Amino acid sequence: MNEPLRLYSYWRSSAAYRVRIGLHLKGLAFENVPVHLLEGGGQQHSEAYRQLNPQGLVPLLVHGQRRMSQSLAILEYLDEVWPEPPLLPATARERQRVRALASLIACDIHPLNNLRVLKYFEHDWNVPAPEREDWIRHWIETGFKALEAMLADHPSTGDFCEGEFPTLADCCLVPQVYNARRYGVDMTPYPTIRRIEAACLALPAFQAASPERQPDAPANAG
Amino acid sequence: MNEPLRLYSYWRSSAAYRVRIGLHLKGLAFENVPVHLLEGGGQQHSEAYRQLNPQGLVPLLVHGQRRMSQSLAILEYLDEVWPEPPLLPATARERQRVRALASLIACDIHPLNNLRVLKYFEHDWNVPAPEREDWIRHWIETGFKALEAMLADHPSTGDFCEGEFPTLADCCLVPQVYNARRYGVDMTPYPTIRRIEAACLALPAFQAASPERQPDAPANAG
Repeated sequence: MNEPLRLYSYWRSSAAYRVRIGLHLKGLAFENVPVHLLEGGGQQHSEAYRQLNPQGLVPLLVHGQRRMSQSLAILEYLDEVWPEPPLLPATARERQRVRALASLIACDIHPLNNLRVLKYFEHDWNVPAPEREDWIRHWIETGFKALEAMLADHPSTGDFCEGEFPTLADCCLVPQVYNARRYGVDMTPYPTIRRIEAACLALPAFQAASPERQPDAPANAG
Repeated sequence: MNEPLRLYSYWRSSAAYRVRIGLHLKGLAFENVPVHLLEGGGQQHSEAYRQLNPQGLVPLLVHGQRRMSQSLAILEYLDEVWPEPPLLPATARERQRVRALASLIACDIHPLNNLRVLKYFEHDWNVPAPEREDWIRHWIETGFKALEAMLADHPSTGDFCEGEFPTLADCCLVPQVYNARRYGVDMTPYPTIRRIEAACLALPAFQAASPERQPDAPANAG
């Protein structure tokens, strides 16, 4: 537990942002190692980085000698090793709901809009930028429509996605809303998502994890 | 725990296949309710099904009155409510690895090749079938290359992805290899993935969950 934590991150990566939120919610000190996803064709593709993470993606968390990939799997690890404050609620049914909300974002929205996918469209299919941006908005809106229904209609939604403290689901929601705003998604149809985002962004842990506050963010970001 | 289990499934859905494996590994009886993803434009889009799952996706597990979406979140729930035999290993580090391997498939391969994505390409972008199939193979091969490296190089890989019993990771691996074969991916470069698939398919639980064995599979499947 007392071994140092090192996070390979990129200021604008949605998946890295989730893990930064989790680390800050747990109050854990960590070294932030920026991996520039665009410079020189992307530092994540370098031989040195692939040695650390064969997927060539961020985030990667190193705890002592152990290398850990995949944001949701990292957040579950943080919650198991440092249980307080919890990132998952008390009962199996509540935990199922939190993980389902997190997966809706982490499986069914974000991977479709990831940098490597957008590059494929640009370079392999010559899809023009406006159509690529329509694609991005389409999947965010499709996902948010379902997410809003699942949050608005459910008795256990509280100040946060589930109850009165932030969970895995909120760690995913806030970065995805950040992305939505970046691509000009109209957030009007999603009042519950907006309300929960606001509750999260009032907390210092979410503020400290935000893209603009990262060491590798450009000076004019945010 | 003793309330009935009902699984909304489609024989060829990779995500439903994962949950069927989990249910059979746990030895749980369940009612299988087929949702035809193609007939009549897709039964998952019907108003009646959207009432059950606002995402309009399979699988959905109903346990008593509780509706549960998202395959990985469902598998975690099964493992919490019926702990034996376990779908996750004993230590936090091992569990992190299993969840990361599962996420590699469930977040970074499968959603890119899902039916709704392929329909978008066909109907919104008029992408011809051969290019859609190149796309499918590209993301399976990209993912399998990393997965093979993460499995082949790791001391805790055993007969299965982690150690000597099947976990969440194997529940994801087998359906993804099924998809790979369906689309003609050359599996030669992935000997560890093939070896683990064979170990899984030797088990009755994986056999019972296979697409060809489902009540909604056409007579000539498999």
